[in-house]
Amino acid sequence: MKPSDRRTAEGILYTDQYQLTMAQLYYRMGLHEKWAQFDYFFRSYPNYGSHRAGYCINAGLEWLVDWMQEARFREEDLAYLRGQVGRTGRRLFGDDFLDWLRENGHFGAISMRAIPEGRVVHPNVPLVVVRGPLAMAQILETPLLNHLNYQTLIATKAARIHEIGRGRTLLEFGLRRAQERAALAGARAALIGGADFTSNVGISHVLGYPPKGTHAHSMVQIFMALGEGELGAFRAYAEVYPDDCLLLVDTINTLESGVPNAIRVFEELRRKGHEPVGIRLDSGDLAYLSIQAARMLDEAGFPNTVIVLSNQLDELVIWEIITQIQKEAPRYGVDPDRLINRLVYGVGTRLITSEGAPALDGVYKLVAVRDGGEWVPAIKISETPEKTLNPGDKRVWRLYDRRGKATADLLSLQDEDPRQMEQVVLRHPTDHTAYRVLARSDISEVEPLLVDVLQEGRLVYEFPPLEEIRRLRQADMERLDAGVKRIINPHVYHVSLTEKLWNLKQEVIRNVKRET
Amino acid sequence: MKPSDRRTAEGILYTDQYQLTMAQLYYRMGLHEKWAQFDYFFRSYPNYGSHRAGYCINAGLEWLVDWMQEARFREEDLAYLRGQVGRTGRRLFGDDFLDWLRENGHFGAISMRAIPEGRVVHPNVPLVVVRGPLAMAQILETPLLNHLNYQTLIATKAARIHEIGRGRTLLEFGLRRAQERAALAGARAALIGGADFTSNVGISHVLGYPPKGTHAHSMVQIFMALGEGELGAFRAYAEVYPDDCLLLVDTINTLESGVPNAIRVFEELRRKGHEPVGIRLDSGDLAYLSIQAARMLDEAGFPNTVIVLSNQLDELVIWEIITQIQKEAPRYGVDPDRLINRLVYGVGTRLITSEGAPALDGVYKLVAVRDGGEWVPAIKISETPEKTLNPGDKRVWRLYDRRGKATADLLSLQDEDPRQMEQVVLRHPTDHTAYRVLARSDISEVEPLLVDVLQEGRLVYEFPPLEEIRRLRQADMERLDAGVKRIINPHVYHVSLTEKLWNLKQEVIRNVKRET
Repeated sequence: MKPSDRRTAEGILYTDQYQLTMAQLYYRMGLHEKWAQFDYFFRSYPNYGSHRAGYCINAGLEWLVDWMQEARFREEDLAYLRGQVGRTGRRLFGDDFLDWLRENGHFGAISMRAIPEGRVVHPNVPLVVVRGPLAMAQILETPLLNHLNYQTLIATKAARIHEIGRGRTLLEFGLRRAQERAALAGARAALIGGADFTSNVGISHVLGYPPKGTHAHSMVQIFMALGEGELGAFRAYAEVYPDDCLLLVDTINTLESGVPNAIRVFEELRRKGHEPVGIRLDSGDLAYLSIQAARMLDEAGFPNTVIVLSNQLDELVIWEIITQIQKEAPRYGVDPDRLINRLVYGVGTRLITSEGAPALDGVYKLVAVRDGGEWVPAIKISETPEKTLNPGDKRVWRLYDRRGKATADLLSLQDEDPRQMEQVVLRHPTDHTAYRVLARSDISEVEPLLVDVLQEGRLVYEFPPLEEIRRLRQADMERLDAGVKRIINPHVYHVSLTEKLWNLKQEVIRNVKRET
Repeated sequence: MKPSDRRTAEGILYTDQYQLTMAQLYYRMGLHEKWAQFDYFFRSYPNYGSHRAGYCINAGLEWLVDWMQEARFREEDLAYLRGQVGRTGRRLFGDDFLDWLRENGHFGAISMRAIPEGRVVHPNVPLVVVRGPLAMAQILETPLLNHLNYQTLIATKAARIHEIGRGRTLLEFGLRRAQERAALAGARAALIGGADFTSNVGISHVLGYPPKGTHAHSMVQIFMALGEGELGAFRAYAEVYPDDCLLLVDTINTLESGVPNAIRVFEELRRKGHEPVGIRLDSGDLAYLSIQAARMLDEAGFPNTVIVLSNQLDELVIWEIITQIQKEAPRYGVDPDRLINRLVYGVGTRLITSEGAPALDGVYKLVAVRDGGEWVPAIKISETPEKTLNPGDKRVWRLYDRRGKATADLLSLQDEDPRQMEQVVLRHPTDHTAYRVLARSDISEVEPLLVDVLQEGRLVYEFPPLEEIRRLRQADMERLDAGVKRIINPHVYHVSLTEKLWNLKQEVIRNVKRET
């Protein structure tokens, strides 16, 4: 795509056609500037097939707001809409509506509250609350979902991999197999969720992170084709990068050729006063090979070199590698914990695409509309009860138990504050028989989760640097129950409604059923 | 991300760090301008878990070349590299190398042959052959893979859905659940593979396609919250879009409320001289509901309205809907074939993310390097025989049998032409016992597949318009054996080597094994 085309495709037209036809309909009906409120939330944790998440890591907000601040209907965009015709050849969009878009076709009237990036989040909790004139709040739906769904998906996957890898260095390697430009948002989200570095140079530059990498098989192949072999390739690498020498040892045969050649070059380096960094294994039985390589490196006097593992890694594969090392390393005289602590994980495809669950089911739903000075709660009733909305303007609270662990997220009405309650009733969102009562003394902290981000288009929130977002994630992970963090069959974290919100929901449902 | 940051992240630094460190190594060793040849190919068809592809649809080339023609090391990029330091705080990239990049850090010396977009393609066949100075050909690896892997993946998925839907109109609806900016390349690839339209406005504009859409549940909700109900919403829509009236009927209850209200509005429209377009079903048992809705629409005198189906569709779900309609429609007095022919499919998440197989395993491998005026074939031997490269500079041919169906893709050496052969020996790429001999008279056509795209950076290929690419896809699909097109357990299409290429491969393998 040409750069000018890309600017068009990523501008205000980065939305679905029906948002524009609905916006015009609202305009015609005089509803376009009626105030409306939409909640963004996801319905279920990513389910990877054989395993699933018990939490998500919130991400994507800053880039969404960046997009909103740039996007507006330019003359070129309006000209395109002017040229659209319907089935009978008549223009689809009228000049009056296009004139309105020319003046008002931006997000300068939108207010937004949101849960900060990096926070642990759960289903059916509003992560972003949008309030604004109906037409523009409607057009925002698609780009909002596009920006938020993917980053939260990837931050979540990265957090799982980070957790299972015992917090050892995690490298994001996915650019080549990413879903095209998703590589950029994906790398950022991976860093939020738990990756420590990415191989992606451009995004590292933008985010202020040093990019990381080793070398490819092709480098060894080149030297082989020129008759200098793997050893020649390794020597060249050591010569050019004497203090950053990390060698890929599996081009020919890991244990017969790669590791012995690497050790030889490491010895040469050391004689010149440089310490090698380590080796990378990219094929074969990574647990077995890392044990053998560790043994060889130890014996050769390089016990402090790292061993980078790559090749279709994800949380299950890493879990299995660690399990196998714990079981098998002692039989070869290798201390399993020492070995595990020298591992570094290079994770590509399965992180950047969230393999098994390549989309988060985030939705953006109308929850209230202002009519005659009053906010009217809106609802969509579904034949699946879990899909019935929680209506109205809500607040979101996180309750921590006496141990300081998060025990529930609580949705309340705007005028409620659980910090003032003697006891807190936690209603199940759909099952009227299921509720929990917590005495205030059982709750160590009640934390409001939503912060103001935009007030009528004005940014009132300071986006924290990535390091701060990572700290938020780490702090939230520490306050999450171990059972919720399990990578298979996690505990179900409670997302509950206050008694008042529950009652409102029932009332709105009754009203709708009565009317239809 | 800010627009200026996006330009940086998507420019020449849209690559992996190790490509740059390797490029500098080649520079230091005097190898950076040595000519090298790389093949791009994928190793296996997408495997969606319970089903898998038996062919792929090639896509992504034009956007890759667009990227290559823009990307070059700007001062800002060089400044960033100048600031990178290694473990000991010493600069990673030297000024001499950065000076070289300032002059030569673009793709103006790269030559490229490729199989055109829209063609059916198979594993281990070079889809793109890159030849150029080693350093820049190496840096190209990551962005090339990033641009090609995803579009081919999505074009393939779209072709499968198009096939199972009997060629009925297929709408791409995935922007909100796409992996962020992948939505753009994904929509294009979906159109190449078999989608007829996309809801994505911006990419439709860029590609010259009309975007398509209906309306959302939120529109009905708004009218309900304002006391005008679903009928009020439908009437408003019909008033604004009398000739393009397509109504979403499942907000409250499809058969009790949505379809009867739609019919009422359709009757009102017709009295005013307009014909309605149809309805959309977005939840519930789509087969059952479409039968009942068809019956109701027929009885009300609207047999020519379309029924758009959406909600987590993919090739398996559509197959099941069609199967169920064929079985159950007659019992309700509905002609199943008539019903199937009025269906339109709106496919979102599962197409744009290629759910089940979110990445294509395309690779970019060194196959030859020029040394002392001679091209030396390069190879990477793998312990998995299928992963051992086919070395050298190759041509790609497609052989058609007497019925005109494609029967094999054949890789030959550059100086071979199967059109001149009396008989063609098709060697299995790895199994020396498996081969097939075709008499020239059994072959109706021998087609060379690679075309020249770039000659030392100069574009020598005219990228066809999207309609032409779609025609190529359609023509290739018609020449593909039905067994290969099966969505579950497809026949394995033959990709073979000529006798001479087979012999070269064995010789190169022997040489490598002797050396190591």
